[in-house]
Amino acid sequence: MTAPNRNALWARTLVDELAQAGVTAVCIAPGSRSTPLTAAFDRHEDVRTFSHLDERSAAYFALGRAKRTGEVTPLVCTSGTAAVNFHPAVVEASQARVPMLLLTADRPPELRDSGANQTIDQEKLYGDSVRWYRDLPEPEPTNRKLRRLRTDAARALSTATGTPPGPVHLNVPFRKPLEPVHVEGDVPDDLDSLAVEGRDGPFVSTSRGTPTVSETDLHELAETLSEAERGLLVAGPEDPRLDTEAITALAHATGFPVLADPLSGMRFGGHVRTVPVCGGYDAYLAPDVTDDWPGPDVVVRFGASPTSKPLRKYLARTDARQVLVDPAGEWREAEFTASDLVVADPGRLAGDLSRLVRGSRSEASSDWRDRFESAEEVHWNVFADAESADAGTVHEGAILADATDLAPEPATLVVSNSMPVRDLDRFAEPSTASRTVLANRGASGIDGVTSTALGAGSATTDHLTYVTGDLAYYHDMNGLLALGRCGVEATIVLINNDGGGIFHMLPIEQFDPPFTGQFKTPHGLDFRPTEDIYALGFARVETREAFREAYRESVAAPGAQVIEVSSDAESSHRTRERLREQVVAELS
Amino acid sequence: MTAPNRNALWARTLVDELAQAGVTAVCIAPGSRSTPLTAAFDRHEDVRTFSHLDERSAAYFALGRAKRTGEVTPLVCTSGTAAVNFHPAVVEASQARVPMLLLTADRPPELRDSGANQTIDQEKLYGDSVRWYRDLPEPEPTNRKLRRLRTDAARALSTATGTPPGPVHLNVPFRKPLEPVHVEGDVPDDLDSLAVEGRDGPFVSTSRGTPTVSETDLHELAETLSEAERGLLVAGPEDPRLDTEAITALAHATGFPVLADPLSGMRFGGHVRTVPVCGGYDAYLAPDVTDDWPGPDVVVRFGASPTSKPLRKYLARTDARQVLVDPAGEWREAEFTASDLVVADPGRLAGDLSRLVRGSRSEASSDWRDRFESAEEVHWNVFADAESADAGTVHEGAILADATDLAPEPATLVVSNSMPVRDLDRFAEPSTASRTVLANRGASGIDGVTSTALGAGSATTDHLTYVTGDLAYYHDMNGLLALGRCGVEATIVLINNDGGGIFHMLPIEQFDPPFTGQFKTPHGLDFRPTEDIYALGFARVETREAFREAYRESVAAPGAQVIEVSSDAESSHRTRERLREQVVAELS
Repeated sequence: MTAPNRNALWARTLVDELAQAGVTAVCIAPGSRSTPLTAAFDRHEDVRTFSHLDERSAAYFALGRAKRTGEVTPLVCTSGTAAVNFHPAVVEASQARVPMLLLTADRPPELRDSGANQTIDQEKLYGDSVRWYRDLPEPEPTNRKLRRLRTDAARALSTATGTPPGPVHLNVPFRKPLEPVHVEGDVPDDLDSLAVEGRDGPFVSTSRGTPTVSETDLHELAETLSEAERGLLVAGPEDPRLDTEAITALAHATGFPVLADPLSGMRFGGHVRTVPVCGGYDAYLAPDVTDDWPGPDVVVRFGASPTSKPLRKYLARTDARQVLVDPAGEWREAEFTASDLVVADPGRLAGDLSRLVRGSRSEASSDWRDRFESAEEVHWNVFADAESADAGTVHEGAILADATDLAPEPATLVVSNSMPVRDLDRFAEPSTASRTVLANRGASGIDGVTSTALGAGSATTDHLTYVTGDLAYYHDMNGLLALGRCGVEATIVLINNDGGGIFHMLPIEQFDPPFTGQFKTPHGLDFRPTEDIYALGFARVETREAFREAYRESVAAPGAQVIEVSSDAESSHRTRERLREQVVAELS
Repeated sequence: MTAPNRNALWARTLVDELAQAGVTAVCIAPGSRSTPLTAAFDRHEDVRTFSHLDERSAAYFALGRAKRTGEVTPLVCTSGTAAVNFHPAVVEASQARVPMLLLTADRPPELRDSGANQTIDQEKLYGDSVRWYRDLPEPEPTNRKLRRLRTDAARALSTATGTPPGPVHLNVPFRKPLEPVHVEGDVPDDLDSLAVEGRDGPFVSTSRGTPTVSETDLHELAETLSEAERGLLVAGPEDPRLDTEAITALAHATGFPVLADPLSGMRFGGHVRTVPVCGGYDAYLAPDVTDDWPGPDVVVRFGASPTSKPLRKYLARTDARQVLVDPAGEWREAEFTASDLVVADPGRLAGDLSRLVRGSRSEASSDWRDRFESAEEVHWNVFADAESADAGTVHEGAILADATDLAPEPATLVVSNSMPVRDLDRFAEPSTASRTVLANRGASGIDGVTSTALGAGSATTDHLTYVTGDLAYYHDMNGLLALGRCGVEATIVLINNDGGGIFHMLPIEQFDPPFTGQFKTPHGLDFRPTEDIYALGFARVETREAFREAYRESVAAPGAQVIEVSSDAESSHRTRERLREQVVAELS
């Protein structure tokens, strides 16, 4: 590697090492202090650059890419509040366990805390939200420092994709000149090739073991499952998705129904044909139904806490042994009903258990499965009957059902908080379709979802469908810039109920004021002009039929289309309630 | 105070105490966990509520209000990334010393770090950027706890407006029910009235002394100034603005020229008639000019580091005694040329000094003043001549000159980073006009400037002019929602040079790639459709004449108008350089 000055050498070495360790893309927000990094990424042939103007959107875009691929897309920004704008996505990445690498340019030590322009305290800027933080040393062209730099780069990626994955922050100081100008004598010509060129592959390769329980513990757990007559597997949200094959094998071996959150990777796919995958629990796991059921004797829970509150409450009501499987040993279970924590790689554990478990062939066991299978049948029949009744109108749940149903094969589907993800959970029937479903359920914010979706879309050849509410659409309107700027195609379904539809589900609806002014907060925004700012197609539909037609057209069209569905939050809420009550009535 | 449950009592007590201590407005982002706070603010008759949908914009809006008024506009949000979105503005407030109060709702202790939905680690979320942090205890209706709550509220405001002012973060946990539903027996009816009603005024009134130097030190400094033949007063950016009267008195007493940053409060106002206020230093304090000048023997510096780099570099070249006056005892001087730090209230110090100093009547002293006065005359003549020449074209500096000049009396003028504030510094001639000029120079980010401007506008009856570049306009496009939603009128001048104009001033311009793709980053955005989203007037102008006409029309019109000036960053840069060279040529 040659370089005109020490900053260029330093940045090129860092970028080279990241590329050798597998980085293929980077998100860059323009700025001055980061010039050496930006220039080094720009000139690297194997790294694709995505340029963003709003750092908040940039970080969510990188998050979306990582959610889709499991790999790191580093982020580069200049010093100052640019770096602070990354923070919301850093928190989401930390909580959702998504790999991320933040490369924030900074002033050299002598300019910090001096009143120098655009200089803030970037040390440990993201607090406990990062898995590893390091303030890199000042660029210096010595063998020892360059080797350390390569080691740090390799370690940053290894840590970001470790157990659990998450954000890593390298703060990178540079002293002027920042541009690749020739500085005579700045770079010695006798540096070791190992320091300058690195190795073939990462400078340090990581073989990361995953937590594996002892044979004793494994057999004890297998025995528990073998003896259980009424077991459940619960697949919660997880990125990258849970090991579908292994959990399917465990479902086969145990005969337990799988309650599959749409964000678990278990709701959709070929395995749905062979094991009982349940998606209607949000309605039928109501006390009016389950009070007549025997309780489960064992529940094995994978992934984070499920999206469905009725499911969480049901699990809290049972007195079953509840086994939480978490490779990171965290306690993501806020009903405090777990009885066992198993710190183990979920895929390996499920696979190992599937080979040891003997499923019960008792009548109780078969009754138990039948309950869930019948409940599912009743549930989806009720929903299908409603569907044929409401083609001339539209409610929000129907949109999620249709988008999931009509998306081409394979599809990546990203849904926003707060209502679309809940409606997806309720209205998207388990199916054999190939669907990668993503949402920001780490911190469940409505911020940055558009960028997350477009980032995910940029990392796959799948068709991308993104379903968002109007508040999330507004919040990250800047994220739409990535459509043209980063070349992402998408069908964007905008469910516009003019404000915070979720508040209709909460008791505050009964108190107005402040309900309308401070909670529902209608904004009256006309989003159609985003068509002209961001060169989108924009269609507005009022009925389910029209939505379906517009959706099919969009799937067939190139570029990006927004399909805005004008919906009434309150009536959609009443429809959800009515359908739920109908399911409960038929089952109790 | 009556309340249906403990959460309502707690929130109403907190809000009541804030209002009694002087809070008159609040910025609220809708959310569920913050319901008790939102409802309490909404029902308080003396507090105006501003509802925002994007928390990043909300925080900058509150920042703008505080910059304009010196008073706190608290911020309320729900738990999760909502709170993280406040962070950029918190950093700006910390660095620019602007009072701010963050009220972030949180889950109660038993739900934290449990995987509960929308729950993140909010403790010390803003790190060292806040002056005070407290995790409030769980709401409990006891005399002791309510008195503590009132004390905390009074302390929060007192600290936020202390020395230096800055952000304070109260994290506020609530347990359901969050709504004002009646909970039998939850609020005892025998609470002390002191706890429940507070006092008439703040629960604890603060008399805050300010740093005042000893008589000995004061006289020593006065003696130094009296003996100096060539002194300078430098007024840097400061919010709230510097004490114009006291610094003017000191300028009178010493006879020193005042180099007045446009953000200091010293560039404009009646005092300009009576003391030599300089604004052209960015051009004429070039080495080619000042190498022929004698150096100053003493420089007294108020406020933060000046915007002008040539001024900072000039100060660094002199070997004068340089006295930095800072009430907070910080060292905001990144050229490391200061010889003395005086920790004192700048207004009081300047006033005290003005009464003790005897200005030099020597020839050297009068020559020194003449140099600056002549340089100013030459400078503004060169600029005026250029002005009459370029009415048919437009360059960016001319827009700042015109906006400052044509704004009505009184006016609040907010300018974005990175070019508009520098052009304001260069092109806005000191005048007796009444102008409050604001910019985010704490961290000098381009984020949140629209919201800062509209926040400032919401706090004054002044006409508001906001001059922004296209990147800053794009970055906080969401902030435009406040125009209609918060009822702000404004003339928004959008200087659109399609990308990062500032990079033309940097050496990276010579390297393309990566210059165009990663630095200049043209976005090609058509901003006219923001007209329809946010109900603005939108006019596009190409010449200086057309700009002036559109500006005058906008000032006379109600509502908000955007005047987009299509500019060429490179040619504007060349014009700046040409004018600077002309000034230097005439003076050297």
